[in-house]
Amino acid sequence: MKAQSLIIVVLSVALLFAVIKIVTSKATTVAGNAADAVISNIMTRTSIRSFTDESLTGEQIETLLKAGMAAPSAVNKQPWKFIVVKNREFLKRIADTLPNTRLTTAACAIVVCGDMTKTLDGVARDFWIHDCSAATENILLAAHAMGVGAVWAGIFPNPDRVSQLRGLIDIPESLIPLCVVALGHPAENPEPKDKWNPENYMVID
Amino acid sequence: MKAQSLIIVVLSVALLFAVIKIVTSKATTVAGNAADAVISNIMTRTSIRSFTDESLTGEQIETLLKAGMAAPSAVNKQPWKFIVVKNREFLKRIADTLPNTRLTTAACAIVVCGDMTKTLDGVARDFWIHDCSAATENILLAAHAMGVGAVWAGIFPNPDRVSQLRGLIDIPESLIPLCVVALGHPAENPEPKDKWNPENYMVID
Repeated sequence: MKAQSLIIVVLSVALLFAVIKIVTSKATTVAGNAADAVISNIMTRTSIRSFTDESLTGEQIETLLKAGMAAPSAVNKQPWKFIVVKNREFLKRIADTLPNTRLTTAACAIVVCGDMTKTLDGVARDFWIHDCSAATENILLAAHAMGVGAVWAGIFPNPDRVSQLRGLIDIPESLIPLCVVALGHPAENPEPKDKWNPENYMVID
Repeated sequence: MKAQSLIIVVLSVALLFAVIKIVTSKATTVAGNAADAVISNIMTRTSIRSFTDESLTGEQIETLLKAGMAAPSAVNKQPWKFIVVKNREFLKRIADTLPNTRLTTAACAIVVCGDMTKTLDGVARDFWIHDCSAATENILLAAHAMGVGAVWAGIFPNPDRVSQLRGLIDIPESLIPLCVVALGHPAENPEPKDKWNPENYMVID
């Protein structure tokens, strides 16, 4: 009987500690791992060029667009427009003319465009290229986090690619397509590249 | 005695479940929250322009550089060089001449440069601007995840800013400074902007 009481006390204390651990672990895991998750996502993202025939959900596409629009922009001009191409025929046409877009098997594409009606003036106009590139990187990182594959195909400032793309889909005159992001569920699992190279930085101290 | 045995059984079962929950929770929390952490980090990042006098650790700076170098680049050329400016006198000089860099109170700066010896040829040369902008966005996102404040100041293609910056710090001729990222511990806590705007996308379906 005494032994049983002791077992009950020990079990009760152990259970109490376990419950405290469970209740507090969620908060600490999220806070402690958030930075690791972000850094790891940046370090493991790699281009996916081959996709399954599964399509993306509307929610996934909206999350990608929100990520893109969350990018910083010079003087907060947000000089961008995102054209989501879902139509199979259009995707095929773009893939045939611009094979670097890798759209043959993609579920959809986001054409990231600079909106010339929203840029800064004069010499600061071309900061739209920084802004739209930042938006594109946000889309790629959000896609990777969600398990969606993506690859960035540069269009502007290659004049041939810009006019070819304009010939394939209806892009308003005021927009300049910077790049095409192919999106879909990965049909390949390439190893992320280790691009760390100490020769690629220098310090002024 | 029977009641005590029952209590022991109940407590043992509860403890077993609690331990299983603890053991499995770490894995599921990391996997389940990783995507949320990444998306949340993208959505809550905002520019920090005022910094405390605390400096960044070498480890923090290296993580930021690794994040930058993990960016995608056209044909994997990695046409970039990151100049870390820690020297107080140089930071002050840049701040005085280029106040948009917000370096007055910054702990350090990273000047993200295109390396013209590593770009693609011909019309594809200027894809270095996409690549270096993606690298810059990676640095900003990694900084935010670590609780480090940052702001992106555009330099290229503004010719005055490019030549002014060249006059202040030693930038090899083969490099073009795209932007300056001011870095430090935040001395302000601005609300992230909600930039979601359904007018900024269109769908071809």
